[in-house]
Amino acid sequence: MSLGLTVVGSIAIDSIQTPLAKRENILGGSAIFAAYAASLFVPVQMVGVVGEDWSAEHTKLFQQRGIDTEGIEIEKGGKTFRWFGKYLDNMNDRETLDVQLNVLGKFKPKLPESYRQTKYLFLGNGAPSTGLEALDQIHKAELVVADTMDLWINIARSDLDELIRRIDGLVLNDSEAKQLTGEINTLSAGRKILDFGLKFVVVKKGEHGAIFFSRDGLYVVPAFPTEEVVDPTGAGDSFAGAMFAYIVSENGKLDERTIKNALVYGTLVASFCVEGFSIESMEKLTSAVIESRLAQFKKITAF
Amino acid sequence: MSLGLTVVGSIAIDSIQTPLAKRENILGGSAIFAAYAASLFVPVQMVGVVGEDWSAEHTKLFQQRGIDTEGIEIEKGGKTFRWFGKYLDNMNDRETLDVQLNVLGKFKPKLPESYRQTKYLFLGNGAPSTGLEALDQIHKAELVVADTMDLWINIARSDLDELIRRIDGLVLNDSEAKQLTGEINTLSAGRKILDFGLKFVVVKKGEHGAIFFSRDGLYVVPAFPTEEVVDPTGAGDSFAGAMFAYIVSENGKLDERTIKNALVYGTLVASFCVEGFSIESMEKLTSAVIESRLAQFKKITAF
Repeated sequence: MSLGLTVVGSIAIDSIQTPLAKRENILGGSAIFAAYAASLFVPVQMVGVVGEDWSAEHTKLFQQRGIDTEGIEIEKGGKTFRWFGKYLDNMNDRETLDVQLNVLGKFKPKLPESYRQTKYLFLGNGAPSTGLEALDQIHKAELVVADTMDLWINIARSDLDELIRRIDGLVLNDSEAKQLTGEINTLSAGRKILDFGLKFVVVKKGEHGAIFFSRDGLYVVPAFPTEEVVDPTGAGDSFAGAMFAYIVSENGKLDERTIKNALVYGTLVASFCVEGFSIESMEKLTSAVIESRLAQFKKITAF
Repeated sequence: MSLGLTVVGSIAIDSIQTPLAKRENILGGSAIFAAYAASLFVPVQMVGVVGEDWSAEHTKLFQQRGIDTEGIEIEKGGKTFRWFGKYLDNMNDRETLDVQLNVLGKFKPKLPESYRQTKYLFLGNGAPSTGLEALDQIHKAELVVADTMDLWINIARSDLDELIRRIDGLVLNDSEAKQLTGEINTLSAGRKILDFGLKFVVVKKGEHGAIFFSRDGLYVVPAFPTEEVVDPTGAGDSFAGAMFAYIVSENGKLDERTIKNALVYGTLVASFCVEGFSIESMEKLTSAVIESRLAQFKKITAF
């Protein structure tokens, strides 16, 4: 099978409380959401680390979607990264109740030999140094996209700056884009990040959609409006994974049609993601279900 | 001239500080922004009250756009309503530094006889009792839309409830929609307000666009992305005025095409509004300028 998209990132066991429900020991992490979402569009190879508490059932979930899991390293004697989070009443803001880094603390990504020819690399949210190490193992990538977050802007800025110099596209939240640039306007922030030397920047605005910036201009996509928000965890990772995977499915083209479709598919997949805990609602996704929501989205937004 | 849209609301003299600039004694108030924006689409009649400090130059600005100003009452010995506001660094949040209600405090709208046959009435943000008094003077309106805000939810809830029972469409911010319903999700809030018995509800999300709710479904429009935010004052009023005026220009039809165009034109006019203080940037607006931005908006959002 030809390589599609290689996804590197965190693999977690999450315990999550929302105002309406509570779930323990469910799959989470940036690589989990991004890889699963991406697999709806292209073949995916996953790279991450887990501990001995990792269940073979989890791996099977990914293999059933045709995802290559050879890059999931099981560290002997180790425990998988754990995140305990609580969403506030508005279902947007969240508190981290506890973090146990465990094997993620010393994660050095090791790309199986068969992955190193990949043309497309997605660096899910994680330490920028991890991304740099993964990049060092790729022979010749055509398009590399990274997702990042406030934590790395705060504690690993110089690694992040180096990573930005070596990638093509960056995905981050609006508040993070402002933090990274010191700008107060989302557009100014996105444009300034683009000027760091990127081919494109995608600023995620959660329930308000996303803005794509490139030298050719910008595109705006609203979020798909949904009342049924069960768990917002992973929405941003799923958005980014699906978006980039769509671009990969179009051979890495960055023309207007591809970019717009990529943004829309990212948005739709994320809208399914939040309708369940973990990747549960994405597990039921088929092309037909996505295309049906696409038609609905067009009906709601086209003018 | 046949009647188009009758606009009732506040007329103010504003003094505004933003992180970048400061302007004193400029035109403001819900009727000012809504009427000016509406006049881009249909004939407009204005109803409001001012004091003896009101300049004939202000009135002329409106008359030059063909707006009927017979309904602007000049109260002898009175002073015009004054608002002193300051925008915070994010250019979205604001503080009221001072309010001088002056003649607005006892405002009883008096619709000139020639206005009372109007079919379309817009009640700009103001005390719900003012809206009720205006409604009492209309012989037979076909479509009445009101804009409201948190203040009236807090201090005049029963008047507001009565007003909502007598109008067709309500326009308000997302935070206000949540406050009015106790819902935490914008969609749930919009739908609940619709169930108060309205034909439609428009939830404004500022820089994130707006959502239109009716029994036929919902429509989502992102905001036009702009970096050049000079003064956000009046954006919501301009949006609502232009949106409703577009519907009036289509004889009050509420079909999908009309509603979507109305939302888009409201969005575009508001995007011009914020690019200057007061109504200054709207003064330069022509159909050609609006249509050019419409083409740009389509390019940015259509997929």
